[in-house]
Amino acid sequence: MPANAGNPKRAVCLLSGGLDSATTLAYALREGFETYALSFDYGQRHRIELEAAARVAVSLGAAEHRVVAVDLRGFGASALTDEIDVPKGRAAGEIAEGIPITYVPARNTVFLALATAWAEVLGAADIFIGVNALDYSGYPDCRPEFLHAFEAMANLATRAGVEGATKLRIQAPLLHLSKAKIVKLGRELGVNFALTHSCYDPDPNGRACGLCDSCLLRRKGFADAGMVDPAVC
Amino acid sequence: MPANAGNPKRAVCLLSGGLDSATTLAYALREGFETYALSFDYGQRHRIELEAAARVAVSLGAAEHRVVAVDLRGFGASALTDEIDVPKGRAAGEIAEGIPITYVPARNTVFLALATAWAEVLGAADIFIGVNALDYSGYPDCRPEFLHAFEAMANLATRAGVEGATKLRIQAPLLHLSKAKIVKLGRELGVNFALTHSCYDPDPNGRACGLCDSCLLRRKGFADAGMVDPAVC
Repeated sequence: MPANAGNPKRAVCLLSGGLDSATTLAYALREGFETYALSFDYGQRHRIELEAAARVAVSLGAAEHRVVAVDLRGFGASALTDEIDVPKGRAAGEIAEGIPITYVPARNTVFLALATAWAEVLGAADIFIGVNALDYSGYPDCRPEFLHAFEAMANLATRAGVEGATKLRIQAPLLHLSKAKIVKLGRELGVNFALTHSCYDPDPNGRACGLCDSCLLRRKGFADAGMVDPAVC
Repeated sequence: MPANAGNPKRAVCLLSGGLDSATTLAYALREGFETYALSFDYGQRHRIELEAAARVAVSLGAAEHRVVAVDLRGFGASALTDEIDVPKGRAAGEIAEGIPITYVPARNTVFLALATAWAEVLGAADIFIGVNALDYSGYPDCRPEFLHAFEAMANLATRAGVEGATKLRIQAPLLHLSKAKIVKLGRELGVNFALTHSCYDPDPNGRACGLCDSCLLRRKGFADAGMVDPAVC
């Protein structure tokens, strides 16, 4: 019997404060999980991400929202943590080619490892992550085969692997959805998109630049879904 | 051709400052690797570990020693990070039974994930870790099957998996050695054991307690090797 057999089933959900992770959190909650949202202060250039994550967690009803500090900036090599220019104004077709300069080395591995640690302490068997294999095909750690390998590893890394308890599952409900479908799913689940933040390079007031890859993908998603993005009104 | 084809081959080595990781670092250096030592400030109760790691890295000639902050204490549930009593004075036969209270959830997963991030930035294909499957059989993340699964996952998580570059290898040269054999190997490799620190519960001056599991295993290792431990003289 799992340690928390008498409790509601628990899950950890990675939450960046963007559209995808907000929709993933809403999905986990609709599935009936008591959901613990986890964000990281990893030296990202734009702290507004963490403020968005906190707003989203409260608005959707996460059981708890925790921000864990991990200094990925010390390793460098990404436009998201270093003073490297974020690409702007690329056509949608250019975005998915090769590994983007915004790729942070092993970021999802580090984030899922920390989610695994918290899940073990909470007695949670499910970890939700809002990765997407379509728009981010250039990121090695957004691919389904990576998620499967992580799940296999995590089940050997933890008490679950030794004591035969409930197995950990890595759940990525957005993995094969287009951005338009994610936007529609988020709306159906009651996500307040005005609270979310996706831009790689916001201005000092936190307004999206509208030109980076993330802004362009988001804009196209809303357009394809026939919706207006309340965050850029 | 790997990115650093013209450079000496590089490795990242996890370094806690204990006897095992010091010996592992010395082993990586003898194997000819330009070795980057990585320690973590993870909220451990005893900061003396990090001082020992810094001394060991300098004395053995690591190319660099970096301490990365990651707040595992926020997740709790271990005598190494919380105010839980460390077990004392247990017989050697008792130590390896079940998962010890000193187990930090998913610690090696988190540490290896961060080592993977640094390895990717450095162009290093090898990650050394001083885990041991004999003395720490109660820790799920010290088992060979965990290390194999991590290696498979890491190769999917990184550029290596996408671009067909040199594959990452997780090297655990102490995995099947007894503590006595580790002590002998360390001596052969020139490790200054007086600089290392293994105790789970040192006094305020940093002296080992002599009674926790780690101290008892270390003492037995030196005794079985017919050597005197310079750190407890």
